[in-house]
Amino acid sequence: MELPDLMMVRTVLPWLDIAGIAIFAISGALAAARREQTIVTFTFFAAVTGTGGGTVRDLLIGAPVFWIHDNRALAVCLFAALAVWMTPRRIWPVKALEWFDGVGLAAYAVFGSWKALAYGVPPLGAAAMGVFTACLGGIIRDVLAGEPSILLRPELYVTAAALSAGLFVVLTLLGAPLLPAAGMAALAGFALRALAIHRGIALPSYRD
Amino acid sequence: MELPDLMMVRTVLPWLDIAGIAIFAISGALAAARREQTIVTFTFFAAVTGTGGGTVRDLLIGAPVFWIHDNRALAVCLFAALAVWMTPRRIWPVKALEWFDGVGLAAYAVFGSWKALAYGVPPLGAAAMGVFTACLGGIIRDVLAGEPSILLRPELYVTAAALSAGLFVVLTLLGAPLLPAAGMAALAGFALRALAIHRGIALPSYRD
Amino acid sequence: MELPDLMMVRTVLPWLDIAGIAIFAISGALAAARREQTIVTFTFFAAVTGTGGGTVRDLLIGAPVFWIHDNRALAVCLFAALAVWMTPRRIWPVKALEWFDGVGLAAYAVFGSWKALAYGVPPLGAAAMGVFTACLGGIIRDVLAGEPSILLRPELYVTAAALSAGLFVVLTLLGAPLLPAAGMAALAGFALRALAIHRGIALPSYRD
Repeated sequence: MELPDLMMVRTVLPWLDIAGIAIFAISGALAAARREQTIVTFTFFAAVTGTGGGTVRDLLIGAPVFWIHDNRALAVCLFAALAVWMTPRRIWPVKALEWFDGVGLAAYAVFGSWKALAYGVPPLGAAAMGVFTACLGGIIRDVLAGEPSILLRPELYVTAAALSAGLFVVLTLLGAPLLPAAGMAALAGFALRALAIHRGIALPSYRD
Repeated sequence: MELPDLMMVRTVLPWLDIAGIAIFAISGALAAARREQTIVTFTFFAAVTGTGGGTVRDLLIGAPVFWIHDNRALAVCLFAALAVWMTPRRIWPVKALEWFDGVGLAAYAVFGSWKALAYGVPPLGAAAMGVFTACLGGIIRDVLAGEPSILLRPELYVTAAALSAGLFVVLTLLGAPLLPAAGMAALAGFALRALAIHRGIALPSYRD
Repeated sequence: MELPDLMMVRTVLPWLDIAGIAIFAISGALAAARREQTIVTFTFFAAVTGTGGGTVRDLLIGAPVFWIHDNRALAVCLFAALAVWMTPRRIWPVKALEWFDGVGLAAYAVFGSWKALAYGVPPLGAAAMGVFTACLGGIIRDVLAGEPSILLRPELYVTAAALSAGLFVVLTLLGAPLLPAAGMAALAGFALRALAIHRGIALPSYRD
């Protein structure tokens, strides 16, 4: 089912993928730490944040769920949960992690759209799959924690993922080669997220 | 995988389907408007409310998820989100929309059961699929918004969907032809919903 | 797709399975009773608690969802909802049910891992599937009810399921025969849960 392009990416970039899951998993475990939870909650939050978005994407496009047949993704999440659990929270560089999270956000938005296109999903659905891959893990984590998710805050987060995913799909439709399209799209989304982190720019809220 | 009956319905009724998704998507976007959210939240709520129930149904019965391979459903949701975003809330006829929503509720309950039967799902599961198709989008939206869902209110809403779905399955089991069974079942559910809207009738709550 | 072992278990233990679903469904319906809900909520909570964990497991491992093609599971959930609805809450022996729930927790953790292994899922994923089968129904119920789930409490619950699932997978990897491995793993998880119920032992919370 998988296209050669995807296979190549998987062979070339597996460590990048592991790094991305680790960043998301650490952010999940830190959310559990802020709430003074137990190691079970740490693990669940790490796993849901690290793998939730890609899980929903794979279910929706009919792909085998990526972490079910590969021990590495879950192992990374377990390890992230343990690492955060066994250390004082102040040693984790929250600001640096926010920047890494921004890189992961943009990269996964592109990767999710790419995988969806590779499975024959048409443009709008493929762009949505990119956004889901990048954002849904964090949203599920917040719902499980009973907290208002990023979805309900005006911060530019989902929007940055939408920019990366949408731009990648549009460039691909216009016939751009894979790697330049992916690079440009990821860069654009990351730039927008960087503005949000650095300058605090936000979306306007609806006023009646 | 799809049966001829379903194919025919899809060819004959595509615009009704689009209209149904639009009604649900508008109700999702209006929920975002009531909470003074951003366009991203509008879009997410419109898409989840418009497509969530059918998505869960398709995952459960093993069908390809209906909106993944068809740009139209997502396009309608995007358009509904933009339309509500760009207009003052008071121009939307909330009472009229509630009636349209009741029509959609009854119609989707029948459609969901029908599709499940067409996929070989036995009676109880098929009735449950009708209820899910009609109600689950709104329930997921409320969970994401951190609000008590329709599931926790005594209002007759899920019940109306259950009446339509259950009656359709029973009539089909009794050998009734497709279209009369669908019409009667949709009408019965809509009538019950109409009583709830018009007269405020509700289910009794459990008393200890 | 199913292995002979699983087929045998299904033939030998169908009534145990029905009993397990009934215990979980009753606990879901009692949660609705505590909140003084309507029969619709009773039914939804009974079905979600009774079948939710196995549903997510089957979706993730790519198995047909177990209750879709078998009327019995849903029928048991409906019956449990009705039984609780029609009786005063005090007749339900909450303490006894908690012990039965502990048996179900351990048994389903083993069963979920077993089914995942039978579908070719590697060890970490299979252990996760056991935990999901045992716990996720109750977690989804709590999220729908807008309550903090067991996931956020220090009580030993998810941990007991993790012990059963993990031990079963490890014993199987070490070449232990099926039934002794299943028995030992279920017993260990149940013993841990019994300590939690009887002595109130709990996991330590993270302190900054």
